[in-house]
This record gives sequence, C-alpha cells and structure tokens, in this order.
Amino acid sequence: MNYGIVVKILGSILIIDSFFLVPPLLIALIQNERSTTAFAVTLAVTLIAGFLMSRIRIKNKEIKAKEGLAIVTFGWLAISISGAFPFYLGGSVPTYIDALFETISGFTTTGASIISNVEVLDKSIQFWRSFTHWIGGMGILVFTIALLPAIGMGSFHLFKAESPGPMAGKIAPRIKDTARFLYISYISLTLLEIIFLRLGGLSFFDSAVYTFGTVGTGGFGVYNDSVAGFSSYIHFVIGIFMVLSGINFSLHFYLYTRRFKEIVEDTELRNYLRFILFSTVLIMLNLFFTKYGNLFVSFRDSFFQVSSIMTTTGYSTADFDLWPTFSKLILFVLMFVGGSAGSTGGGIKVIRIVVLMKLIKREVSKIFHPRAYAPVKLGRKAISNDIVARVNSFVALHVIVFILGSLLISLEGVDFLTAISSVAATLNNIGPGFEMVGPTTNFAFFSGPSKLLLSFLMLLGRLELFTVLALLVPGSWTKES
Amino acid sequence: MNYGIVVKILGSILIIDSFFLVPPLLIALIQNERSTTAFAVTLAVTLIAGFLMSRIRIKNKEIKAKEGLAIVTFGWLAISISGAFPFYLGGSVPTYIDALFETISGFTTTGASIISNVEVLDKSIQFWRSFTHWIGGMGILVFTIALLPAIGMGSFHLFKAESPGPMAGKIAPRIKDTARFLYISYISLTLLEIIFLRLGGLSFFDSAVYTFGTVGTGGFGVYNDSVAGFSSYIHFVIGIFMVLSGINFSLHFYLYTRRFKEIVEDTELRNYLRFILFSTVLIMLNLFFTKYGNLFVSFRDSFFQVSSIMTTTGYSTADFDLWPTFSKLILFVLMFVGGSAGSTGGGIKVIRIVVLMKLIKREVSKIFHPRAYAPVKLGRKAISNDIVARVNSFVALHVIVFILGSLLISLEGVDFLTAISSVAATLNNIGPGFEMVGPTTNFAFFSGPSKLLLSFLMLLGRLELFTVLALLVPGSWTKES
Repeated sequence: MNYGIVVKILGSILIIDSFFLVPPLLIALIQNERSTTAFAVTLAVTLIAGFLMSRIRIKNKEIKAKEGLAIVTFGWLAISISGAFPFYLGGSVPTYIDALFETISGFTTTGASIISNVEVLDKSIQFWRSFTHWIGGMGILVFTIALLPAIGMGSFHLFKAESPGPMAGKIAPRIKDTARFLYISYISLTLLEIIFLRLGGLSFFDSAVYTFGTVGTGGFGVYNDSVAGFSSYIHFVIGIFMVLSGINFSLHFYLYTRRFKEIVEDTELRNYLRFILFSTVLIMLNLFFTKYGNLFVSFRDSFFQVSSIMTTTGYSTADFDLWPTFSKLILFVLMFVGGSAGSTGGGIKVIRIVVLMKLIKREVSKIFHPRAYAPVKLGRKAISNDIVARVNSFVALHVIVFILGSLLISLEGVDFLTAISSVAATLNNIGPGFEMVGPTTNFAFFSGPSKLLLSFLMLLGRLELFTVLALLVPGSWTKES
Repeated sequence: MNYGIVVKILGSILIIDSFFLVPPLLIALIQNERSTTAFAVTLAVTLIAGFLMSRIRIKNKEIKAKEGLAIVTFGWLAISISGAFPFYLGGSVPTYIDALFETISGFTTTGASIISNVEVLDKSIQFWRSFTHWIGGMGILVFTIALLPAIGMGSFHLFKAESPGPMAGKIAPRIKDTARFLYISYISLTLLEIIFLRLGGLSFFDSAVYTFGTVGTGGFGVYNDSVAGFSSYIHFVIGIFMVLSGINFSLHFYLYTRRFKEIVEDTELRNYLRFILFSTVLIMLNLFFTKYGNLFVSFRDSFFQVSSIMTTTGYSTADFDLWPTFSKLILFVLMFVGGSAGSTGGGIKVIRIVVLMKLIKREVSKIFHPRAYAPVKLGRKAISNDIVARVNSFVALHVIVFILGSLLISLEGVDFLTAISSVAATLNNIGPGFEMVGPTTNFAFFSGPSKLLLSFLMLLGRLELFTVLALLVPGSWTKES
C-alpha cells in the first residue's frame, strides 16, 4: 500500500469537505444559533487537518486498485468523523457515537436517524444534516461511475457490459471526464426539484432540504412526520424525483444530449420501471381492499412508498409498518433490490438482479439443450462468465453480510423483524425499517456498539461491499504489494 | 415428451406403492381399527390402477431428461394422491386437501402437519404417516444420487465434481447399480436406530415410527409434544441419527467399505459438521445466558434443535419459537442451508453454500490479482464455471421461489414471520416454523388454496426446483421434443 498518496488525497478531500461546511455556518451566523461555534471550530480543524495532510511529501504518485479502495473508504470515514462534530459540539445529540451514526447515515445517503425530534434542531443543523445527503449522493456517483469501473469493480461497468480491468496509475484523467457530466446532471436535477417543490408552496429552505434528501436518495427531513404533512402534489413531486434519482445518471446525460434510443433500450431502466410499476399496483390493490377503500389514496401512498423504498430513500407518507404483511413483504424485498447502477440509490442494484434472472432462465433452458452455447445477455450484448460470477458473488456476499449483521443486532434482545429490518435498512442505505425501527420511530434505543455496527453496515452497503472488505484481506496492508 | 413410457413407469411406481400399504393394513386388521377399510380400498385401487397403467403398450422405450423429470414429479404426486386416501376415508382429517397436504408432507419428508392431536389417531394411521417419511427418504436418495446426476442435474454431482451430462436412454442400468448400495446404507441405519431407541426404553412401535421420521429427516411423531417427553438419552440418539441422515449416503457406504480417507477429506462433510458445531455452541451460549442457566440442558436442547433444523427433520424438544431472536435467526438460516447432497435432508444443501463461499473468496482475491487463473475448488478438485453457474442459479431461484411463496401466503393475513417461516419450513422440507406455525402449533388454519400452495412448495423443494419447473417450460410438452 502506498500510504503517502492515500494520506495526501484524504487531505484534499478534507479541504473540499471544509468548503461544504460554509453554507451551514452562514445559516448559523445569520440565525444567530448556538451551533455557530460548533460549525466554525469543525470547519477550522477540518481545513487545517486537510491542509497538513495534503502537504505530505511523496515519492511515488501511483494509485492502484488498493490505494483507490483505501482512499474511498477512509475518505467517507474522514468526512463523517469531521461532519459529526457540529452535531456533537452543538449539543444536538447526546454522544459522539450518536453524532457519528447520524453523519455516516447522512453521507451514505441512508437516512436512518437517532434524533427523535428533528423540528427543534437549529436551522443550520437541519441544513447540514440534509446537505450531507446531497454531498454523499454526488460522491457516490463519482465513485460508482468513474472510480469503480476504472478498477474493474462495482455495478456500473455492467451498464457498459464490459470490464476494462485495472489501469494502474491512469485512473485520474478518466475520473475527471466522467465526473463532469455527473455534476451537470446532478445539479440540474437538484434545481429542477427545488423549483417544483417551491411551486407546491414549500418554503425555499424546506424545498432545498427535501430536495437534498430526494436526489441523494437519503431521506432526512425537517419534520417529525417525514413528508406526511405535505400535499398530494408534493408527494407526487418527491415520488417522481426519487424515481429519477434511482436511475443511472448516464441516462440523464443521454436525455440532455437527446440520445433517446439508448434510454429506451436500456435493460436496467426497463426492469427498474417494471419493478416500480408492479410493486405499486400490487400494494395499491392490497391497501385498497384491506385498509383505505379509496383508490386514489391507495395509489398515492403505494407509489410514494414503493419509489421511496426501491430507490432506498426512506421518506414516508404513511406508517407502512402498519400495512398488511403482503405490502410489507414487497417493501422488504424492494429494500434489497435497490436502485439502478450509477444512481444515488443503494441496495443490490437492479442490474444485478436482472443478471441473476437471466442466468436462471439460461440454466432452465440448458436442461433441454445442454450442449447449446447460450451466454447471458443484457439487451443485445452477451456478458462474460467472469461478470456473471462477480454478480453472483456480490449478491451472495450481500446476503451473508445481512445475515451476520442481523445476528449481531439480535443480541440487543429485539424481535425478529426489528433485527432483520434494521440491518436491511442500513446495509441497503434506506433508513427506516419495521417494528422498533419503523417510519415513526428511530435508531436511538440501540447500544453504542450496535450503532457503530449499523454505521459500518451503511458504509459497507454504500461502497458496494468489496471495496471495504478488500481492505480487510490480509496482505492488502503490506508495503510491497 | 414420450407419454407412453411415463405412464407405464408411473404404473410400476403405483404397484410398488401398493405393497407399502400392506404393513399399515395389517396393523389396522390386528388392532381392528376403523381405518381397515380405508387401507384395503386404497391398496386395491392403487394396485389396479398401477397394473392397468403398467400394461400400456408403447413403441418407444427411450427415457430422456424430460421423461425422467416427468416420471419423478408425477411419481411423487401419484403416490401422494393415493396415499392420502387412508387419512381421508378413515376420517382422520376433515377434507381431502388436508389429507393430501399431510401425505405430500410425509413423502417429501417435510413433517408439516394439519393434525392437532396425533395421539388419538389409529395406530395404523400413525404408522402410515411416519412410514411415508421412510418411503420418501429412500425415494429421494435414489432420485438425487442415481437419477439426477445421470441427467446432469441436482446437487449430488457436485460431490463427484463432474457433470456426466445427459445419457439418453441409458439411465436405467446406472440407477440399479447405485440404488443397491443406497438400500443397504438406508436399511442398516434404520435398523441401528431402532435398536438404540429400544435400548432407551421406547416401545417397538415408537422406536419404528420415530426412526422413520429420523432417517427420512421427516419429523412426524406419535406424540403431540414431538419428542419433548422422551429422556435425554433418546434426545441424543435421535439427534445423532438426524446428523447421520443428513450426511451424503455415499459416505455411509464408504464407512462400510472402510474407505475412511474419502470420508475424512470430504469438503461437504467437514463444512456440514462445522455448521452444526458452530450453531450448537452459539445457541447453547445464548440459551445458557438468557433462559436456562444450565449448561447441560442448554447444550442438549441446542444440539437437538440445530441437528433437527439443519437436517430439515423438524422434531423439537422445546418450543424454539420462544427462544431469543439470536437463536431463532440461526435456526432460520439453517433452514435454508439444509443437509448434504445425497442425503435425505432438504434445503439448499451444504455443498452449494460451500461453492458460493469459495466463489466469494475467489472474487475478493481477484481484486488484487485480476489476471490470475483461479478456479473454484472443492478439496483438491477444481470445478467448472458451468457448475458454479448452475449452483448460483439454483440458489437464486430458491430465494425467488421463497419470496413469491411468502407473498402468496401473506395474503392469508398472517404476520410477517408466520408468512416467511411457513414457506421456509415447507420449501426446505423442515416442518415447523415460527409464530403461528411454530413447533407447538400446526398448519391446519390455512385455507385450502394455501395448503395446496404449501404442498406444491414441499414438492418443489424436495425435487430440487428445476426438476419440477422444467416441466412448466413451454415446449417441454410437445410430442416431438
């Protein structure tokens, strides 16, 4: 491991991070809030630490897969450790572990919270909390679309149905190219949603924070009932923008550049929309017949919740923990499906599920035509056995991490559904789960160690498992390798 | 599809089945029970139907994969339809659907029951109920060790780490060879357990029915508290014989032929025992610290339940539904792991889990050594990408069937854990689940359609999914193909 370059780049990340602390500091100053000092101190310390780290002298500028993984993992950790201080120093949360949980939940765009009453928080803290979603959302786009494919990992390279393999020391220029169009797409989507929310009568502040929570597929808000108090118009606006944020951002770019054919023919997009459509209709009917007796309300709440869970955002217009088991089961499954590759959504990702389905179809047909050559195809392109194996191992590992996480959390003495859904909701970066971690409750009751474990799961899920786990493999820390 | 040969062989299966009805008929006659007529009528009709079907004239004697799958699926169904009549005609169950559920549960060695009070049943019915486990257990050994590998399917061929591929029309001689040693192993194990149970003071009748339930990894008994009323000695005897029945029966044969090296080096056996050991210790500690405070009782109940669930038998010495979530979660996961390939146990099978684990390990190491050739290995043998793909698709399909089944069952309006555990308990051929289908309750409350669905899931799980599903593929019914 080339430690020098890792520390140096982490320094630059901290410097950028300190700039992101300026808006909440300004809000605190204008509103004359008690969090002002907390933001000022955090900003100063982050900037100085970043500056010192970025000044380190290094001989070797090479960044290989290993260094890339270390930078991303520790980068996310570093901005979380720094970003947690305003919560802690300003007294918004009781312990630093709580602050860290909340901040990791923010930057990983999870939205799981340990704060019971968000309405009494300082405006600056409310802003910062949601802003971490927006920053994290942009970070994840750069990470999954630019960095991971460059080292031959992640879900996004499936989109291109090609695996470029590692390109030692040549990652930087590629990242810059792809990152630019991501910023354009991401910022456009942000501005668009703010406008639509303003048109619905939301204040500029509310429009901004709920937009951050939407486009980052995070789920933090500034009202204790999430978005339940807003109008149906706002529900549909947020619902639709969540769906848009769960789409591969390359497709957004195709939209701006009028490459409609690529959009219409995209296998993942078709399946993503199909999942949303089917789930919405099934839950709508279930709600209509067992609870609401009103088709419009059933459709509105069903569409909103499906889009919120599938995109791993986590907003809620109703307490879906009280819905019938059929609806809850669909939501639970959608938690794992997640958004599209190259979106801000978490979870396993639609494209991987599609590859698994195609593999099953191929294997069934092989029973009768065992000697036929039948590659697994995405659209018209055949994908290699290597990629299929990687998808399979990813999904299997995701399930194993889910099981191990649930086992550890169950030691808290919670019930079965609380244990598995708290892990599902954090590992897949959703936010709320069921029972004791349902949409009307929060994660405050967990012990310190469990909060740290859940924070680790959020990071693990966000960085697509292998990124973090590869760093735990013996040998990845030796100097020479 | 060559319908003629399928019908002809189904006829032979029914003839054999009618012989199996002789022992319960004799018991009914000796005890002068009301079920006597029911058994006599069922035997006569089954024999006549079988005779007529086996007399059908056919031109083409060829059995390909398709015919093999049809024979097995419809064979299991045919003996269940016939075997359900004694329950129904004798008035032991209220409806024929209930009788069918109970019989399919028996022949698939599941052990899920719709009978609340088994102690009041006729002796002949009690015997027949458990005997279906024993018959089903033997059937599944012949099916998974002899038939499936011969057409290149199933989990057992992983044991040999080779895929012979389909051998059109040449299945019969292979089956006979392998089937013989299976009978020897299976019958030896049966006699041995009966002796050990007799030594523990059980009556010959009880020893026989509990042995049937054990070696077939079924789980039907003749007492309402399963095996809780027996001594610790009996618990350990049944516990150990469940473990033995969950082991690949080829290894049993190696034991008789003193090929110890093959046994010691077997990858699946090592992992199977490791799973049992780790789970037993974890649950033992969990029970010790949260419930019992007695290490011996904790160990006894933990070992028994782990071995019962892992081997998909389903006996219980305690109401594990009341155990802490940590223990319940481990049991829930073990439900899916299941027994070894080529055993009477159900579930995904240990060998497939091992292949998945090795695949994950390989993929992690590939991050740092992307160009290295690293096949997935079982022991010293590398296994082909084709087999890895088949394992992956099997596991994925298993999970998908589990999800779809749970969704349909949830329409009954049951709670989350009842919905998922009733499907897990039937698809994996275990028997009891949690909550409303826990070890002290049964499946009687489900509606007719749900009972049929759960019966279908038992069959699907027992015949390793693809066997049954392949028959549903369009085109498998056309004459020419």
